[in-house]
Amino acid sequence: MFLSELIGIEDAFKIIRNNQKVKEYETISLEDAYLRVLGEDIYSYHDSPPFDKSAMDGYALIAKDTFSASNNNPITITIIDEIRAGDFSEKEVHDCEGIKISTGAPIPKGADGVLMEEFTIANGNNLEIYSQVTPMENIAPKGEDIKKDDKILDKAILLKPSTIGLIASAGYDKVKVYKKPKIKLITTGDELVEPSKTLEKAHIINSNKYIISNMIKSLGCIVEIDYCKDNKDEVKIAILKASKECDIILTTGGTAISKGDVVVDAVELIGEILFHGVAIRPGKPFAFGKVNETPIFMLSGNPSAAMTQFDIFIRKYIFEIQGLKYNPSILKRISKVKIPSNLGRTDYIKVSSDDKHVNYSLNKGSGIIHSMVAGNSYLIIDGNNEGIKKGDIADIIFFKAMELI
Amino acid sequence: MFLSELIGIEDAFKIIRNNQKVKEYETISLEDAYLRVLGEDIYSYHDSPPFDKSAMDGYALIAKDTFSASNNNPITITIIDEIRAGDFSEKEVHDCEGIKISTGAPIPKGADGVLMEEFTIANGNNLEIYSQVTPMENIAPKGEDIKKDDKILDKAILLKPSTIGLIASAGYDKVKVYKKPKIKLITTGDELVEPSKTLEKAHIINSNKYIISNMIKSLGCIVEIDYCKDNKDEVKIAILKASKECDIILTTGGTAISKGDVVVDAVELIGEILFHGVAIRPGKPFAFGKVNETPIFMLSGNPSAAMTQFDIFIRKYIFEIQGLKYNPSILKRISKVKIPSNLGRTDYIKVSSDDKHVNYSLNKGSGIIHSMVAGNSYLIIDGNNEGIKKGDIADIIFFKAMELI
Repeated sequence: MFLSELIGIEDAFKIIRNNQKVKEYETISLEDAYLRVLGEDIYSYHDSPPFDKSAMDGYALIAKDTFSASNNNPITITIIDEIRAGDFSEKEVHDCEGIKISTGAPIPKGADGVLMEEFTIANGNNLEIYSQVTPMENIAPKGEDIKKDDKILDKAILLKPSTIGLIASAGYDKVKVYKKPKIKLITTGDELVEPSKTLEKAHIINSNKYIISNMIKSLGCIVEIDYCKDNKDEVKIAILKASKECDIILTTGGTAISKGDVVVDAVELIGEILFHGVAIRPGKPFAFGKVNETPIFMLSGNPSAAMTQFDIFIRKYIFEIQGLKYNPSILKRISKVKIPSNLGRTDYIKVSSDDKHVNYSLNKGSGIIHSMVAGNSYLIIDGNNEGIKKGDIADIIFFKAMELI
Repeated sequence: MFLSELIGIEDAFKIIRNNQKVKEYETISLEDAYLRVLGEDIYSYHDSPPFDKSAMDGYALIAKDTFSASNNNPITITIIDEIRAGDFSEKEVHDCEGIKISTGAPIPKGADGVLMEEFTIANGNNLEIYSQVTPMENIAPKGEDIKKDDKILDKAILLKPSTIGLIASAGYDKVKVYKKPKIKLITTGDELVEPSKTLEKAHIINSNKYIISNMIKSLGCIVEIDYCKDNKDEVKIAILKASKECDIILTTGGTAISKGDVVVDAVELIGEILFHGVAIRPGKPFAFGKVNETPIFMLSGNPSAAMTQFDIFIRKYIFEIQGLKYNPSILKRISKVKIPSNLGRTDYIKVSSDDKHVNYSLNKGSGIIHSMVAGNSYLIIDGNNEGIKKGDIADIIFFKAMELI
């Protein structure tokens, strides 16, 4: 009769954090940068705008020339040139002169305002002006947004459309990023088969392969898939191979705590088990180790437990080895349900939360598969807490807050 | 002096909705289904679990045989067989018999409970039992999760790791999905150049190409990129070509309202402008039309305005043509700022919101580029409202809620 010692969740986090492999960098085209993690601080090569720029289609002129203009009392000036976007004018604007100008074009010398086209009527070179312009009106001044050599982005952020646009504006067509982690997923279990309309007796469809591989993809990693029977030698060979090819190994199945189980035993033979069994619910039979310096996370065979273990331990790890901070907001919600827990154990219960309340996501008795797609958040009961009563303020994390994007 | 009639935002939504092209389907391998949109209802081919299944490693036995067992008073039964996961036993369990069983293996005939291994000691074929089992304890009954032929998923949902796992469990290795929309992005403007460390006078880096193309990618679409000078013939040719190759066309630039502007003029010549100018801020100079039945969305050249136009109009459209509902939650937050608006105009102001409050995301005077990466949410002031006072309850939408995932 063997009862393993469970370690607390904070100790598990600490051991995992102490065994992080930090990733390397690569330089890629900015066109391929979407959802990569920035590997350098970005300093602007340019002022932005690079020159005093017209913010409107209209006429560049001297603001004080317009101060007496109104709808009933237009004034007239002379149009001396035209500047389209991408173009510029060598001419200087003097009193009672104006230059036709497009949005985005550089303000000509002498002018200090732009009057919108709709407040003018042009007759040949004469321009009737029906409205006033204040100095610098409709002008975006050089360097207003960004000054040359300013630091505009810190490294280790996820590159999204707007930040990629910012990097482009700063003058970069290439960018240094963290290499994508390459992760091997090895599902194990004699009973597992591929999806099929008919099933032999005792066979179960390998849903973990589909669930966990896509969770890995959702964190921006490259995933490779392998499968083993419950055979220690087969598992050993697959893990050794993976340890040389990949940055991280994930397994499912073969982690039962009560006995020697195939995956944990195999890792013990070819590497090191750093812990086996964590005081969490669900997901207790979770193990972590190293083989050839490659970290290996051993998840349960039960898909629902494996998903929760992934949420608790793997997301954080993958964020952090890419240089990203992982801090999903913990929010406070009023519980509409009573949930018992045990001291010393951390519970992650899938629930449905809205802007104020938290409720169960499932009827009691619903099984594994339904629980996989249920809820929008975890309710967390930490080890100092014996449970949540109806009306208590509970800690929740929305699933969305745990995602890369 | 020409002042265009702006249409209201609801009218703009209506015109766009009436010109939706619904997408077609394709059948793909379930391995490629991540972030595709389900194109069929899914009915399960199987009961799940497919048989009464052990939820633990232990011994399948008759529950009532254990009713007198305790730590101080073990009882003994005979082990008559072993069932590993993926295997089954032809033997039947009788009184005072048990069969060793692995997690996931089928419960043998005669047994109605599973005792966890840690509460037993085996000596050869004799098993000492130190704990009681209630009927059906540690058994996941056949069909508990899902009954054969039950509908388990409705079409038109985004496929995520858990739903893909559910489809696998239901017996599918292929799945019908909506085809990915193919979108052509045409940026226009004589002043635009690719990112570079040095800039010629009057040139501006084409950040829209990087921003809008990646916003399109973020919605799961295929994006193709083109560029035109401010030349009506060039724009006409590019749009005509795109109208035959793609599902949707997006342009940037050339939509000024005050005058005939190049993109809107080009579309008018080869297709139809359905509206030009919407009573929103920012983003007023937005146009929508059709060329060869292909919808064309004409965005501003100003990147900040183009992003907001995309957020308001394009996201909704792309969600809906893939069959997805687009309903980002509108939440209530207390405003810490005063924001004036005009009756009849809908404002989308980038702000920083937390779980309770909303604040400005920018100092006044910050320019276009900084505003692109600022904030985490929009504060929306609808057309019936003359603005928000400090302390008012404001409507906000988090950017995250507008994303595909």
